[in-house]
Amino acid sequence: MTERVLTGDRVTGKLHLGHYVGSLKNRVALQQQYETYILLADVQALTTHFDKPDLIRSHLREVALDYLAVGIDPDRATIFVQSMIPEIAELTVLFSMFVTVNALRHNPTIKSESKNSGLDDMYYGFLGYPVSQTADIAFCKATIVPVGDDQLPHLEQSRKIVRRFNELYKPVLVEPRALISETPRLVGTDGKGKMSKSLGNAVALDSSTEEIAFKIQRATTDPGHPEVCPIYAYHQAFRLDEAPEIREGCEKGTMGCSACKGQIALALEQLIEPMRERRSYYAARPDTVDDILISGTRRARSIARDTMGEVREAMSLNYFD
Amino acid sequence: MTERVLTGDRVTGKLHLGHYVGSLKNRVALQQQYETYILLADVQALTTHFDKPDLIRSHLREVALDYLAVGIDPDRATIFVQSMIPEIAELTVLFSMFVTVNALRHNPTIKSESKNSGLDDMYYGFLGYPVSQTADIAFCKATIVPVGDDQLPHLEQSRKIVRRFNELYKPVLVEPRALISETPRLVGTDGKGKMSKSLGNAVALDSSTEEIAFKIQRATTDPGHPEVCPIYAYHQAFRLDEAPEIREGCEKGTMGCSACKGQIALALEQLIEPMRERRSYYAARPDTVDDILISGTRRARSIARDTMGEVREAMSLNYFD
Ligand code: SF4
Ligand code: SF4
Repeated sequence: MTERVLTGDRVTGKLHLGHYVGSLKNRVALQQQYETYILLADVQALTTHFDKPDLIRSHLREVALDYLAVGIDPDRATIFVQSMIPEIAELTVLFSMFVTVNALRHNPTIKSESKNSGLDDMYYGFLGYPVSQTADIAFCKATIVPVGDDQLPHLEQSRKIVRRFNELYKPVLVEPRALISETPRLVGTDGKGKMSKSLGNAVALDSSTEEIAFKIQRATTDPGHPEVCPIYAYHQAFRLDEAPEIREGCEKGTMGCSACKGQIALALEQLIEPMRERRSYYAARPDTVDDILISGTRRARSIARDTMGEVREAMSLNYFD
Repeated sequence: MTERVLTGDRVTGKLHLGHYVGSLKNRVALQQQYETYILLADVQALTTHFDKPDLIRSHLREVALDYLAVGIDPDRATIFVQSMIPEIAELTVLFSMFVTVNALRHNPTIKSESKNSGLDDMYYGFLGYPVSQTADIAFCKATIVPVGDDQLPHLEQSRKIVRRFNELYKPVLVEPRALISETPRLVGTDGKGKMSKSLGNAVALDSSTEEIAFKIQRATTDPGHPEVCPIYAYHQAFRLDEAPEIREGCEKGTMGCSACKGQIALALEQLIEPMRERRSYYAARPDTVDDILISGTRRARSIARDTMGEVREAMSLNYFD
């Protein structure tokens, strides 16, 4: 059997270096080896942004450009739009019949959200996102889902739901397995936490040379303590070979922050420059991007139809076949 | 605007006299006046019967035969299969984004179920049935939903969800209004409660002459107290003109139970006999029944597609239009 990878992003914002280090870089490698499906999760974005549909609309194409910019190859990977696969909604509804509220509450995301605001104020769709996430994976019979350690309990829940379906009806769905990637969480330029667009501490993948320089220049430092300096973290993430030298220089005081920042700014420029080029190529060709998304979605839809046919048969819902 | 009626049944069992009095009789009248859509709710049946898909499968055609038997005219009314309208699942998922768990808990059915077994043990799909019920009504832009008094809070919740959608996005969906029918709850032959197949106190719509006679013969009576006798309730439901005479005879002791039962058995035979005839006509022509369901579903699906197009446009999800 061909291994099939399912991965993707909620389309709530443009992607940044944190996404690159955490997943995109890995996907560019995975597409060489596996049949790769990449989900533009617009419906999942609605769970938190249902009142901002225009934001989702505009970000959908931005995220697609980010994918193409980092080197996702539309001839190798299938990029598709979640809301255009009705079978995902159908599977969500069918799975929801045999998943208890209690099981959902044990999902780490739901658990922490329910601690913050209480279960009662949660939106029904948000509570059910582990179910719809399972549908995302199951519809295309993905065998592999790349996850970070923190995502493992989520995948375990999806595996359980798939297993339950297969036991209840017929074993037509595939239990996906985790491909655990070291997904170093890239620290933001403020050194305070994870890089995140909303915290203003992110370097976007479409940054200009000036923007990179500016962000790095303004980044927090802590001379003598590289382990808490975000710049050192970037050396580790993007210039691993040179990192020991940087650490030593920083600790000994022989390396000044300005030179240190100059080196990482240059490295980032070298990383991002070809992305910028690919991005502007596609940005100038919106019809090409649309074609990529439309044909990717068509490919995904065709698999979805086949799976749904088997699901209907397994559940005896194929009344007129 | 043409008024459109949406009504239907969960396909968990054959229908009986209680359904006839409570809704079917009314639908036969409604189809003369309104564009009538009748839902075979197989997905909703899964909320309680997800582990018995074969039961749902077999009952789907039985319920369809019951409809045709009572006089639902496939040239007037559209009978369709819920699971074959993916747009209902899509709307369910979209509505679920902005409906809180709290709002669902206020639904009378969910409330009582959650009192019985606790919210945690409830299945996620069951908790969300008010959402999917709204999708059933919204996809076809039904303007009228026939309900009994006890169903009013459910319809009010659907109206609210539709209203919220229209406010959040664009007013493309229709707020349905209730057509409150006096739906006398027909008592079972044991006189103990509502007629219900699972209690064994029901007279099925496909009963033979002998079965009717047998069920009526075995029915509980209470000589002198017609108001608590199920046989008197049947006189009221099916022989309203003669009911006062029966009451008087029973109270005065001039009417014996045996004669009283004989009269109602005859009346039921007269009611059911033509149903039996229509039923056996269609039962002998399974392809015709399939054609009715397939073409009804196709008609419903075409409306569903149009509605979903408008919904996508309203939510800015029509990326490539
Ligand atoms: S020398 Fe480099 S690693 Fe050390 S504090 Fe300055 S910027 Fe950070
Ligand atoms: S006479 Fe008729 S109404 Fe009265 S108890 Fe007997 S069956 Fe019931």
